[in-house]
Amino acid sequence: MKILITGAGGFVGTYLIRQLQKKTDNEIYGAVYKSTSDISSLLPQNHILEGDLTDFAVAESHLQTVQPDIIYHLAALSVVGNSFANAIKVINTNTNLSFNLFEAARLIVPKARIINICSANVYGAVLDSSRPLTESTPFRPLNPYSVSKINQEMLGLEYHLTYGSDVIALRPFNHTGIGQTTDFLIPRLAQQFAAIEKGQLAPTIEIGNLDSIRDFSDVRDMVRAYVLAAESCLAGEAYNIGSGKGYKVSQVIDIFQSLSQAKVEIKVKKDLVRSADVPTGYFPVISLERTISDILDFYRQQKG
Amino acid sequence: MKILITGAGGFVGTYLIRQLQKKTDNEIYGAVYKSTSDISSLLPQNHILEGDLTDFAVAESHLQTVQPDIIYHLAALSVVGNSFANAIKVINTNTNLSFNLFEAARLIVPKARIINICSANVYGAVLDSSRPLTESTPFRPLNPYSVSKINQEMLGLEYHLTYGSDVIALRPFNHTGIGQTTDFLIPRLAQQFAAIEKGQLAPTIEIGNLDSIRDFSDVRDMVRAYVLAAESCLAGEAYNIGSGKGYKVSQVIDIFQSLSQAKVEIKVKKDLVRSADVPTGYFPVISLERTISDILDFYRQQKG
Repeated sequence: MKILITGAGGFVGTYLIRQLQKKTDNEIYGAVYKSTSDISSLLPQNHILEGDLTDFAVAESHLQTVQPDIIYHLAALSVVGNSFANAIKVINTNTNLSFNLFEAARLIVPKARIINICSANVYGAVLDSSRPLTESTPFRPLNPYSVSKINQEMLGLEYHLTYGSDVIALRPFNHTGIGQTTDFLIPRLAQQFAAIEKGQLAPTIEIGNLDSIRDFSDVRDMVRAYVLAAESCLAGEAYNIGSGKGYKVSQVIDIFQSLSQAKVEIKVKKDLVRSADVPTGYFPVISLERTISDILDFYRQQKG
Repeated sequence: MKILITGAGGFVGTYLIRQLQKKTDNEIYGAVYKSTSDISSLLPQNHILEGDLTDFAVAESHLQTVQPDIIYHLAALSVVGNSFANAIKVINTNTNLSFNLFEAARLIVPKARIINICSANVYGAVLDSSRPLTESTPFRPLNPYSVSKINQEMLGLEYHLTYGSDVIALRPFNHTGIGQTTDFLIPRLAQQFAAIEKGQLAPTIEIGNLDSIRDFSDVRDMVRAYVLAAESCLAGEAYNIGSGKGYKVSQVIDIFQSLSQAKVEIKVKKDLVRSADVPTGYFPVISLERTISDILDFYRQQKG
């Protein structure tokens, strides 16, 4: 099975490569904007394809080279908070690279299965009347990133409906793990707790709304779900992927407190508040305690 | 009431200006890419604002100048068939000019009511299980134009949900009238029938699927609906606007045959076939016979 991963050098991409490498007959190629040591340590040099997918010729060339059976489309500008200041850039980039990929696939590998990694962020401001949240809950986007992901999903659906492209949309809820940037809640908290333990930081952490509820999965569970989806989901459909469990931010902090000897004061800072997501879906095996503990240990082991 | 219409020089824009001019206390401004004789005959020169709304500074300047109470946002690249060959251009243009307008309005006239003219084309490949079609029928886009209109609607919704912008989304079904380009079915047929009557064209017309069903409104009804929507619809909601009546293309041709003495042979040409829309909604006053008759007369009166 020939597999191409776009955004292969990113946080989730590297985990997905490791997951796919568990099957020895998988021939894995990674498309990256620019090669890094992370990806070079995972794939042979001639399986790493550099280039900017917002250039159609790059998408064409990658697909000509690899002729993949399966494409995991992870490439995207993906930080929600940033997307307000860079709205046009986030929306155009995520739209254009997805369009180029779907169009090049239609021309070069029309039978390839495309796992279109969208986002549960599209639900945004969920109405009470829409709960429990399912795949048919309306889109209520709260940020430009969310709009870009709706657009990406709709483009994939259009290619399925118009050309019969074998596109499956996945809508992952929050997922985290070692390697995710500290723009995201749990790695940031892990970094801060580790720094407080080492005496490098005053024992006060500022945080947005403690009551906002999010569904956190471990990235290792998430990539397992992506591979299962590629094996069994239906083209033209969209699937939520989450732990099915909502955690308040305050509960996340409780887990950190239970894993750390440090006495940490939590201050609520209003301008960090952002709206909440809510769970649905599948079968995780890694507890949030375990996820947080692993990330915390990672930051404890950092020098400095 | 100060009113700004974007895309004011387009087919629908000029009708909307005439509709709004029926109320004498409306102060109407038209934003156009480039001024034309059509718009100059309708508005005083200092009420016509030229510029490319994909440039944020243009959107800013227009809103600073007009300080509108109501914005009718009609500006878009809008030919469905063309959108396949120009997918990125159509999607980016419609996205970017809408973003610039919503963002500039948020900064300059945060209380302005924005009538966001989206499209019923977003329903595309409607599932039988989704009939009768309502506003909560899922998006199933069949062309890049449709994706661009979903994106435009979602951006407007995001501005409402995030910033409280007073944005109403309208999803018009097909509408036609004198002045619409012959890229669209009914004007094209009217032009062809008139030319056949004059002996300028062989009496054969090629057409896509005769059984495809569309909801056609008269543009004069449609702009009346837009103005009613501005008076009574709710921010953050989306509204279908159509005649509520589906016509097969073959029925449209029957109307032409009944209005013309010309004997015309109809040939079905497969590559003109495109997917169908289906009706819902409101209260037209102009019959399709009347609409078609008016357009046909227009082409009959053309020189040449």
